[in-house]
Amino acid sequence: MNIVAPGIWKIKFGEPEDYTPVKMVKHEDRLELLSQLPHSDEAPIETDRILYKSTKRGFVLELPLDDCEKIYGFGLQLKSFNQTGRKKHLRTNADPVADTGDTHAPVPFYVSTKGYGVLVDTARYVSFYCGSSRKLRTAKTSKDDANKTVANNVRDLYAVRDMDTAGVMTIEIPHASGVEIYLFAGPDMRTAVQRYNLFSGGGCLPPLWGLGNWYRSYTGADAEDVLALAEKIRAADLPCDVFGVEPGWQSQKYSCSYTWHKENFSAPEEFIGKMRDMHLNINLWEHVFVHPTSPIYDELKQYSGDYEVWNGLVPDLSIQDAKKTFAEYHRKALVEKGIAGFKLDECDSSDYTGGWSFPNCAEFPSGLDGELMHSLLGMFYQDTLLSIYREKNIRTYGQVRSSHALAASFPYVLYSDLYDHKDFIRGLVNSGFSGILWNPEVRQCSSVEDLVRRIQLSVLSPQSCINAWMIPNPPWLQYDYDKNLRGEILENYTEVQDLCRKFLELRMSLIPYLYSSFARYRFEGLPPFRALVMEYPEDENTYGIDDQYMMGDSLMIAPVIAGQMGREVYLPEGDWYYFWSDKKFEGSKTYNINAALDEIPIFVKAGTLLPLAKPVQYVTPDTSFEITVKCYGYNCRNFTLFEDDGTTFDYEKGIYNEVKLSFNTEGGFEAVRTGNYLGIKFKISGFEVVE
Amino acid sequence: MNIVAPGIWKIKFGEPEDYTPVKMVKHEDRLELLSQLPHSDEAPIETDRILYKSTKRGFVLELPLDDCEKIYGFGLQLKSFNQTGRKKHLRTNADPVADTGDTHAPVPFYVSTKGYGVLVDTARYVSFYCGSSRKLRTAKTSKDDANKTVANNVRDLYAVRDMDTAGVMTIEIPHASGVEIYLFAGPDMRTAVQRYNLFSGGGCLPPLWGLGNWYRSYTGADAEDVLALAEKIRAADLPCDVFGVEPGWQSQKYSCSYTWHKENFSAPEEFIGKMRDMHLNINLWEHVFVHPTSPIYDELKQYSGDYEVWNGLVPDLSIQDAKKTFAEYHRKALVEKGIAGFKLDECDSSDYTGGWSFPNCAEFPSGLDGELMHSLLGMFYQDTLLSIYREKNIRTYGQVRSSHALAASFPYVLYSDLYDHKDFIRGLVNSGFSGILWNPEVRQCSSVEDLVRRIQLSVLSPQSCINAWMIPNPPWLQYDYDKNLRGEILENYTEVQDLCRKFLELRMSLIPYLYSSFARYRFEGLPPFRALVMEYPEDENTYGIDDQYMMGDSLMIAPVIAGQMGREVYLPEGDWYYFWSDKKFEGSKTYNINAALDEIPIFVKAGTLLPLAKPVQYVTPDTSFEITVKCYGYNCRNFTLFEDDGTTFDYEKGIYNEVKLSFNTEGGFEAVRTGNYLGIKFKISGFEVVE
Repeated sequence: MNIVAPGIWKIKFGEPEDYTPVKMVKHEDRLELLSQLPHSDEAPIETDRILYKSTKRGFVLELPLDDCEKIYGFGLQLKSFNQTGRKKHLRTNADPVADTGDTHAPVPFYVSTKGYGVLVDTARYVSFYCGSSRKLRTAKTSKDDANKTVANNVRDLYAVRDMDTAGVMTIEIPHASGVEIYLFAGPDMRTAVQRYNLFSGGGCLPPLWGLGNWYRSYTGADAEDVLALAEKIRAADLPCDVFGVEPGWQSQKYSCSYTWHKENFSAPEEFIGKMRDMHLNINLWEHVFVHPTSPIYDELKQYSGDYEVWNGLVPDLSIQDAKKTFAEYHRKALVEKGIAGFKLDECDSSDYTGGWSFPNCAEFPSGLDGELMHSLLGMFYQDTLLSIYREKNIRTYGQVRSSHALAASFPYVLYSDLYDHKDFIRGLVNSGFSGILWNPEVRQCSSVEDLVRRIQLSVLSPQSCINAWMIPNPPWLQYDYDKNLRGEILENYTEVQDLCRKFLELRMSLIPYLYSSFARYRFEGLPPFRALVMEYPEDENTYGIDDQYMMGDSLMIAPVIAGQMGREVYLPEGDWYYFWSDKKFEGSKTYNINAALDEIPIFVKAGTLLPLAKPVQYVTPDTSFEITVKCYGYNCRNFTLFEDDGTTFDYEKGIYNEVKLSFNTEGGFEAVRTGNYLGIKFKISGFEVVE
Repeated sequence: MNIVAPGIWKIKFGEPEDYTPVKMVKHEDRLELLSQLPHSDEAPIETDRILYKSTKRGFVLELPLDDCEKIYGFGLQLKSFNQTGRKKHLRTNADPVADTGDTHAPVPFYVSTKGYGVLVDTARYVSFYCGSSRKLRTAKTSKDDANKTVANNVRDLYAVRDMDTAGVMTIEIPHASGVEIYLFAGPDMRTAVQRYNLFSGGGCLPPLWGLGNWYRSYTGADAEDVLALAEKIRAADLPCDVFGVEPGWQSQKYSCSYTWHKENFSAPEEFIGKMRDMHLNINLWEHVFVHPTSPIYDELKQYSGDYEVWNGLVPDLSIQDAKKTFAEYHRKALVEKGIAGFKLDECDSSDYTGGWSFPNCAEFPSGLDGELMHSLLGMFYQDTLLSIYREKNIRTYGQVRSSHALAASFPYVLYSDLYDHKDFIRGLVNSGFSGILWNPEVRQCSSVEDLVRRIQLSVLSPQSCINAWMIPNPPWLQYDYDKNLRGEILENYTEVQDLCRKFLELRMSLIPYLYSSFARYRFEGLPPFRALVMEYPEDENTYGIDDQYMMGDSLMIAPVIAGQMGREVYLPEGDWYYFWSDKKFEGSKTYNINAALDEIPIFVKAGTLLPLAKPVQYVTPDTSFEITVKCYGYNCRNFTLFEDDGTTFDYEKGIYNEVKLSFNTEGGFEAVRTGNYLGIKFKISGFEVVE
């Protein structure tokens, strides 16, 4: 057992593999930041109670588990939340419709309400039996046990599912002869997660514009169509910072050429220039499979796996030369022409049902096999594209459909072709356990109500995104797919557009607050979006809440989905204020909250100083946000706004400010700016008290 | 390469495992029957083109695949049919909601339209890439390839899914250092399947009563309730042969005690006697996990795996002493009291989402690990219970929720907690490729229409079964779950009951035809339920048809689901007669067929002699069916009725008759009985010509 950093222990069992996340995913060392977290010198679980064995199938670990502790995590789990008593077989999968453990981001990291986290450093399809499997009792069965029936039938079985934990977390790593695990101490679950995120290099800090609204345009659009759409959105005063351009921009899509389509995007630099004039950042769709006509095909062939995908290469981006070839081309051909970022599609082993992606038995020049590459491909891909921007000292923010352990520092947000609204909320709630970000994007909608409810969730997520790749007109003009294609516009479209604008503007108001929450992700490892149980691990009422979440420290969001007139909301201890009415609620209670379509339930924690900006249409390097600070109740906690240029990595050299909002000893409100960044992004222009 | 039997080749690669289906699943040798199938001396695929390698993950095989051949099989696949261009990761799973390969019966056997079958003799979670993954082309990319785009976006991608097969079937067997495969020659796909089924011991032959209608009663019912229900069903003249008794009969259910509930079934022998007086065979629900209070717990403990399930033992039934203990108890306590069969629930690794079942890393005294046991548990369980009946020389027919390779001879029918009607049809269509039987049971229904449509499918399946375990009243009295529980009976229940009776009686009419089809399953390996592509492998129109099937040689069924007024039906070459109207249709065409609720589309192949019995209420050892033979068109093919006592294995000693229906040289209809069974089960009492 090694101490890796204060509060982090590494334990080695058997002969671990060479290709693991810790060994292969490069990130900055954050030892200094790690040292600032509270810690004790005692490992958070009794390590001498950990059992292990090597078998023909792989390597098995058994970690002790208390009857009362609850387990969360395992990456982007869309179908379940509290994993206690469940099994998870983690496997990269683009189509994770069942709650088996298949996911876009199978992160082998879990946290416990007892206040610790465990990272199993493997890129294998590892299995976790979270207290679900009890070893055969060797002792004489007690009379109590003998008379116990688990259930009378399967209905009852489901009801008792979580009752009977087996006192052990069994972990099986296939094909391995050993493994290293990392224990992350608390004292609480939240601190354990912070420690894990700092160990991962600290959370990402998106550029300020990345926190604005995104719009992904119709895949059938050519340059003119995209420009016309952008003009319309500007004309309608719908705040927008990023335009996503879907497969249509490329000459070859499946697989990818990474070259512009000769007819539809015949003058890319002109197109980029016109978009820039509208202050729109361009994000380009692509995937990692390289078409034979791509300029990098020949060079990458030697560094590719032994199977094709869609007739294209699968480059082994764990090899420096392959990464360099891929990055260099992107730099010259796209980034230096002004492309702000990329959407990294299809890197998630695509779905198990089709012939998409490469087999698990594929071989790569680096020595990775297909299974390992499925786990890590998204990581290598993020790393490769990020390296271009790092080198140029400009930040990017993008999208990716696969991730894994140690991803916190990658400025890429996960998304999915799945679309159940409740699953999308659950994804957001779960993401905070695992150092990943989740984009509950808005695509097709079944009604105006559905559209608005989904936008409400999206604007209160890491990436506010309308993904209209399937429809030529924005969904507020027509949510119905067929009618949209036919160009039939809603009669009441101005009303719908106004409603959508309200929430797109809410997003813009929250940028300073959100940016500062991301700064804490970066410097303290604290995820900006978190489950309630992470904040209130002592409160058993939060253990099952998978449809409410904290956004930053002060806002609790309880999204409503179409068809609901309102919903039950649990408020943890302390007082809370309803954002829209400033009405005060007492905590430790459950309320029935009615939320009309023009409201999404947001509760502000009493004692909050909330910076709210006057919404702008877009964020430029010169944008300065005019901020009114709302003070909820008395004895307000300080709030620190993080301020820098919003676009470079200069903050890593210490070039940033902290704007500390607080009450001075005389009870007067103060905003004190310290630091060495010379600009002013956040101008405090008002102050308001809510009682 | 060994020749195992005429037309069957075994090829060994590397060092195969010890625990495989062929090595562990015992069945009778059918060499004599196998010799009767047509065969050539040439292996059906070029074996020198098979590549193999051992890797850290396991063992990989590559078999050649033609561009034009189509692949089917892999056990009970509910979500897909033509597997060409798809991946299947076969894994035992009780909740296979996604098309990943998870299934109740992951049979590692596939067949090709080229006319051969391949069994991969492994109990591992084996992966098949069915032409879905192309090896990297080492040759210079051709200009054609270079200009080829697979798709423009994911919508288009789905459309081209099957277009581009990669010329190779890649098979990965995890954890193994070698494997044996068995090639089954045609000349056609149907013959290859016959050969596989005979290699598996030949198909099962259910007792005659097993082909009647089944009713599984309410789990909350006590003995009196069950008897009262049975009386009602008899009083309403609804044909019924088997009553299933659900968990409530046992004193402990999850896990199982295998002892009667002291209060609710206080006089089991009296109960069994009264059911027998009503000519009802009793089938008891149970699963394999042994409760501490069970009389066999102590004895089985030494033969059990190292994990519990629901506080119970997991007996290792691959060990003779364990099998004997389990079987002996069942024989004395239940079978010899008159129990006709069992429903073997929960043996399918239960769902991956919960803590049900044991982990893959479990260890069993025989040396099997959890993965292998998950694959084979259902097989051992079927074998164990069947052994009791074999020893007593009486046949049984039951239900099981997990199966695997070489299962054809086990008289157990698979079922599932899934319920999508289309999936249920697809399951039936797929089952014929893999030596398994499928029960599309009727449970809850959303409407009278849904109820009737589901019964129509069920009566035209291997096991006609109403599984009313959740409702106290039969579904024709009330399909709605809540109302059924409250005892609110449908106003038009007599009408609904009449409609249901029509199809339950149809089942009874078809018993002689179906029994004879099962006899061919037994003696020729020909599955009684088959996909159209198995009959017409040259007809490309059949390659995707997953919602029509052959029942025996002469009937083609095209089920209708609720919400449809009718459907498209493809009729292969030759003429066909619509069963209900005798209307003639020309083949090689697709028709829109309207089917009112009192009809399910059944088409009779021209040239058929169809024996239809006068429906009886139940089948006893003395029952003699009165049969009218319908002759569809001219030049009718002979039909052979198989006739024996219907209840014992005496037919294996040759004690049976064949009743050959044919036209003699003068054009007169004849029924000629040959054989040494002395009874008469099938009395030909009428003859009718349809032109």
